[in-house]
Amino acid sequence: MDQPMNEKTTAELEHLRDLIDGVDQQLLLLLRKRLDLVAQVGVVKHGAGVPIYAPHREASMLAKRRDEAAKLGISPQLIEDVLRRLMRESYLNEKEVGFKQVKPDSGHIVIVGGAGKLGALFSQMLSLSGYQVKSLDKDDWQQAKALFSGAAMVIVSVPISLTCALIRRELSQLPADCILTDLTSVKAEPLRAMLDAHSGPVLGLHPMFGPDVGSFAKQVVVVCHGRQQDKYQWFLDQIAIWGARIEITDAKNHDEAMQLVQAMRHFSSFVYGLNLFKNNADIANLLRFSSPIYRLELAMVGRLFAQAPELYADIILAQPGNVQLMSDYLQHYQHALETLKRGDRDEFIRQFSQVSTWFGDYAPAFARESGMMLESVNDMKPRE
Amino acid sequence: MDQPMNEKTTAELEHLRDLIDGVDQQLLLLLRKRLDLVAQVGVVKHGAGVPIYAPHREASMLAKRRDEAAKLGISPQLIEDVLRRLMRESYLNEKEVGFKQVKPDSGHIVIVGGAGKLGALFSQMLSLSGYQVKSLDKDDWQQAKALFSGAAMVIVSVPISLTCALIRRELSQLPADCILTDLTSVKAEPLRAMLDAHSGPVLGLHPMFGPDVGSFAKQVVVVCHGRQQDKYQWFLDQIAIWGARIEITDAKNHDEAMQLVQAMRHFSSFVYGLNLFKNNADIANLLRFSSPIYRLELAMVGRLFAQAPELYADIILAQPGNVQLMSDYLQHYQHALETLKRGDRDEFIRQFSQVSTWFGDYAPAFARESGMMLESVNDMKPRE
Repeated sequence: MDQPMNEKTTAELEHLRDLIDGVDQQLLLLLRKRLDLVAQVGVVKHGAGVPIYAPHREASMLAKRRDEAAKLGISPQLIEDVLRRLMRESYLNEKEVGFKQVKPDSGHIVIVGGAGKLGALFSQMLSLSGYQVKSLDKDDWQQAKALFSGAAMVIVSVPISLTCALIRRELSQLPADCILTDLTSVKAEPLRAMLDAHSGPVLGLHPMFGPDVGSFAKQVVVVCHGRQQDKYQWFLDQIAIWGARIEITDAKNHDEAMQLVQAMRHFSSFVYGLNLFKNNADIANLLRFSSPIYRLELAMVGRLFAQAPELYADIILAQPGNVQLMSDYLQHYQHALETLKRGDRDEFIRQFSQVSTWFGDYAPAFARESGMMLESVNDMKPRE
Repeated sequence: MDQPMNEKTTAELEHLRDLIDGVDQQLLLLLRKRLDLVAQVGVVKHGAGVPIYAPHREASMLAKRRDEAAKLGISPQLIEDVLRRLMRESYLNEKEVGFKQVKPDSGHIVIVGGAGKLGALFSQMLSLSGYQVKSLDKDDWQQAKALFSGAAMVIVSVPISLTCALIRRELSQLPADCILTDLTSVKAEPLRAMLDAHSGPVLGLHPMFGPDVGSFAKQVVVVCHGRQQDKYQWFLDQIAIWGARIEITDAKNHDEAMQLVQAMRHFSSFVYGLNLFKNNADIANLLRFSSPIYRLELAMVGRLFAQAPELYADIILAQPGNVQLMSDYLQHYQHALETLKRGDRDEFIRQFSQVSTWFGDYAPAFARESGMMLESVNDMKPRE
């Protein structure tokens, strides 16, 4: 395709590219300056103990920038996207400053399973906030008594299949005023086990993100209150200072939502991958012909198989109701497939429309949202 | 959570925010300048007929900027992400300049189904490249003879269920040197129909993107050669100038890949949505507790239901092999579910590991890629 260009064209392009290079140098310096200024805001906020993520201030700043962009004939979405990306970078950099310590006079904090990925993340964030953190891992149980003595809080972050038995067996002798909390992805049973084992403050948490996030900013932490909230409220305030959004609910509602949000989706992704394997699909060929939407989907499924199978086995097997939900799903799949086998286009369309009606305003909203995501996926396309 | 700040803190924050506002003003001006310079590059390229999307130049420019960023202590990924977003904007703006016309002396082009979304997109791109485009829609068949007379190319862009019959019935009397091409998402049967109906140049195309893309840049167009490539090569060159990547394959390979890339995924998304509906899931509640990954998934499923059911019915019913693949999928789901029903954790882990091994290096690569996508999704999170 490349056509030979004449000398004039080549010279013109070279000149313009030099000018663009110059603009990019200025852009880099400006980014450096902005990151530094936001870091200084971080230091001031750190001193005052104000959360780094301020949704309202962020929204009003973005609205102003969008207006200013429009006046310059720049797409408002462009400046919003660039600034959001810059804000992400600034959140990541917050870790260098550290975080305000909400309860400076507390004793030390023990993380049971502190060597695991999620335990290590909480350990890091607590240390960055000035707390003394000790880890208790599977070979450390002979030191448990010494570690627990004088502890302000014990955080349980062990595989879901071990959590309840471990709580009941090992955590019944904690100091009376010690906070007992866990990070398990189901909440009813661990909460029950903690309330049974310990008579002091009890708190159930579920961080809705993987341990590889660079920052807590904008991430969700689900909170199920256990007992003596006044004793552990400082820890929730601390998490909010890290930038997370706290969502309070009861364990039953949480666990029901997780059947769909976690168990069903993990299992569906697993079967999707299994199906590609059984078909011996040619991934390279599929990628060649991928639309952005399919590439994204393939990446989301492939992602699962880069991780530990035990983690997924345990999440899927954690609630007896999961298998029932999956059986229901199987039945819906089967019915829909029978419609196709009969070639009953009208019935398929009828069902489709029924679901569209049920989604209501969410369908166009999701279309808009995913449209923006897909554009962003297309931007990132690797060079061919 | 918001704590009262003392006056000194407030004043310090105000001062820093003023400085950040100043930086953002400079940033906007710089973005305006860069967009203008790239637009000038577009004008020069337009004159010379060079494709707007130059992957190698883009890659080397990004590599240089990454190095320069690192020297300033800026994350290389930050500048890459910002520049990719800027490049997207520049691709969108290319439309204002128009595109080099590869074949200026051609006759007019007829789009059968030019009022549909995809037909309208091709109509727009062709017009922006200087071609005379005429649309033939379902009420225009009495003018067909006049429209086809002297046409350089006829592009068929009608619903998949009508394509083959329409080609055989209506397109057998085209001028002998007229190019006949289609945009259908299956290729074997339409190509056969075009070759049977027309004795001149025949070309099968499948644009792997929705009609709502702002630009062809980086998008994939699958090409299945029909007959007399030398007569229609100019149109492929034209598509490349619009920025798309051309992927040449035979119709059988294309159609097999589409069973997985399109039919299976549309049907799975359909059943996913159907299942939420049958469970009467509380979408607002699910969103409250969503991880970025689940929010993305929900948006991708919900997206489907904002669109026309007929389109999906026809894609899914287009190939008889699709139903067989879905039956296989159902069986794999059933077997995997039986493993869970038995509570056979070890067998689940064994199968999971087998699929992981099969994915090989793709699994960690997909994990990295989707990790970046998820960070970008998290950036876009709407304000609470």
